[in-house]
Amino acid sequence: MPDILSPDSVGLVTPQTHQFTTSLSLECGRSLPNYQIVYETYGKLNERCSNAVLICHALSGDHHAAGYYTMHDKKSGWWDTCIGPGKPIDTNRFFVVSLNNLGGCRGSTGPNTINLDTGQPYGPDFPIVTVRDWVRCQARLGDVLGITQWAAVIGGSLGGMQALQWAIDYPKHVRHALVIAGAPKLSAQNIAFNEVARQAIMNDPEFYAGHYYQHNAIPRQGLMLARMLGHITYLSDESMRQKFGRELREGKVKFGFDVEFQVESYLRYQGRTFVDRFDANTYLLMTKALDYFDPASEHDNNLAAALAGVQAKFLVVSFTSDWRFPPERSREIVKALLTNKKQVTYAEVKAQDGHDAFLMPIPHYTQVFQAYMQKIEIPGEK
Amino acid sequence: MPDILSPDSVGLVTPQTHQFTTSLSLECGRSLPNYQIVYETYGKLNERCSNAVLICHALSGDHHAAGYYTMHDKKSGWWDTCIGPGKPIDTNRFFVVSLNNLGGCRGSTGPNTINLDTGQPYGPDFPIVTVRDWVRCQARLGDVLGITQWAAVIGGSLGGMQALQWAIDYPKHVRHALVIAGAPKLSAQNIAFNEVARQAIMNDPEFYAGHYYQHNAIPRQGLMLARMLGHITYLSDESMRQKFGRELREGKVKFGFDVEFQVESYLRYQGRTFVDRFDANTYLLMTKALDYFDPASEHDNNLAAALAGVQAKFLVVSFTSDWRFPPERSREIVKALLTNKKQVTYAEVKAQDGHDAFLMPIPHYTQVFQAYMQKIEIPGEK
Repeated sequence: MPDILSPDSVGLVTPQTHQFTTSLSLECGRSLPNYQIVYETYGKLNERCSNAVLICHALSGDHHAAGYYTMHDKKSGWWDTCIGPGKPIDTNRFFVVSLNNLGGCRGSTGPNTINLDTGQPYGPDFPIVTVRDWVRCQARLGDVLGITQWAAVIGGSLGGMQALQWAIDYPKHVRHALVIAGAPKLSAQNIAFNEVARQAIMNDPEFYAGHYYQHNAIPRQGLMLARMLGHITYLSDESMRQKFGRELREGKVKFGFDVEFQVESYLRYQGRTFVDRFDANTYLLMTKALDYFDPASEHDNNLAAALAGVQAKFLVVSFTSDWRFPPERSREIVKALLTNKKQVTYAEVKAQDGHDAFLMPIPHYTQVFQAYMQKIEIPGEK
Repeated sequence: MPDILSPDSVGLVTPQTHQFTTSLSLECGRSLPNYQIVYETYGKLNERCSNAVLICHALSGDHHAAGYYTMHDKKSGWWDTCIGPGKPIDTNRFFVVSLNNLGGCRGSTGPNTINLDTGQPYGPDFPIVTVRDWVRCQARLGDVLGITQWAAVIGGSLGGMQALQWAIDYPKHVRHALVIAGAPKLSAQNIAFNEVARQAIMNDPEFYAGHYYQHNAIPRQGLMLARMLGHITYLSDESMRQKFGRELREGKVKFGFDVEFQVESYLRYQGRTFVDRFDANTYLLMTKALDYFDPASEHDNNLAAALAGVQAKFLVVSFTSDWRFPPERSREIVKALLTNKKQVTYAEVKAQDGHDAFLMPIPHYTQVFQAYMQKIEIPGEK
């Protein structure tokens, strides 16, 4: 049976688009007079609009979180392991909303869409967007859908940062925040990796200062390098060892600069395919949103103070081999919540898959996730 | 008092060059009919030639390990913290030899030197060299200097791999091997980082398939990216946090793609200055030598079997925050030596400086290093 017909799949899905015509003020000081957001929904919104769950995507994610677009799709949405009937985010109970963030490249207004003022793609003129901007934009989408309070806002990695920001900025509008493989801010090392990725893209001669669309060009090599590098940080040393070891692609050393080790072949492939589905200007924007995220900075670097007003209950999950956002970073969030006597469940999942673990069907993780979601009360639920 | 006049400095030094005219067969199957090696020496070779110590350099190192070239030099040799009168590698006792490896770019024959057969720089036609090739080449330099047995062969990182290879290939010619911040082979993650660095260089449009010298070009952006990336792996998350934290260069966020965080500024500077002193083709060769190093591979991946014949005594040192070659990797070497009942001293130094710790004056490290070196017996020493 193809996965699409499996009883725990949301099956065929269709993205929808909403045009916003009220100007959105951004943290950078600029504003967008109009913009569109593409999103998908799974499950059914109940009468009291009390069962809505918002999915926030990470750096290279989009609105296609679950299901399939056609019967022939080989790949499902990016979080299909966790969204569907009977899965942790159970579409039998919850109405799930998943959007492509502003500045994205998969249908929402971003650098690769036309700026109505100029008739040209925004390119590098697209304003820098922050996690807080995204959250505000997501709140507006909620308004459109008639959702004033989310049963849960959920995200992994950069998505987890959005869930955290939701609880801070809209305390009454989030009942549960699920922060998975997240961090309260990037470390210097995290920023450093982002900076190398940006330099790779911006120094690519096909980048044309971000105006590559007009040159029918793509900063292919730069974006490929950025993705290869990102990929190393998503996996763990251990998972790479298990996956590739020092396996040679053709059985013996060739004393040359072509691909020799399996891991090289894998990385080059990952880099190449990424270029076909992702926009370099969006990549730049996403890394900046990551760098800037630091809710404690407005409170003398006191995270507990930043979280003093949250009303949501929290599930925080980290993975032992995640060296991008290691468990210590999640524990900072947990500690700050506990300082405020907030209700928080924390799970440190033993996993060898590094940062990417949040996308994987790891039994302990699935169990914790599912148990937490099952206990979420839905007002009006029979 | 300038450092150069300090009593524990080797003071002014002058590099020397030796022309080799006997062909050197390389592991890749090719050979070099003639080549030159540049080297420095510190201290005095005793009558019995029994006090010689060989220093092996790492990826971006060279022969200038200690002292100064002029009274005005601001920077000393790269391992000046450890080499000098009264320092761990005590030039009052030892005659220290430090060379630029074959394939290097600081005076020894390498891609940026003229191929006498063609009258052009070797460029990408320079053969791929391995750790074993370097060791053979170093043995020949020993012959030239009248050294048939080294009191010690010492190196950090890739240099430590050379020390290990010495003990394997020339068991009777090394009394002590000091392997500092080393590993018995690269992990898949290590290879992956090298591969990203290589792709950055080779995809730079100024690379011209390695023939950039003839185009009066330098693959500047690629080499800069490689170095920036390398640098992240040499530091620890913790040392970057202490060094830079999330400090902003101009005090506030600018919502743009210029340098904002101190760590970005630092990395760009490191990348830029590296380009002025290092050759991209050499960088490629060095990463390949790292990737290929794997003495156990000739023994069914049994490291103990690879080390069965060594006669040298070992000092193995690792640093707790080194995530490039973490302590576990050093312990693999120690374990394989102990399986063979070889004499080995192991120190796991608590340090926050990551892989770079091997270059730093960390008291516990200096102490262990010094104590070990002091106990090395020098036949004929009064």
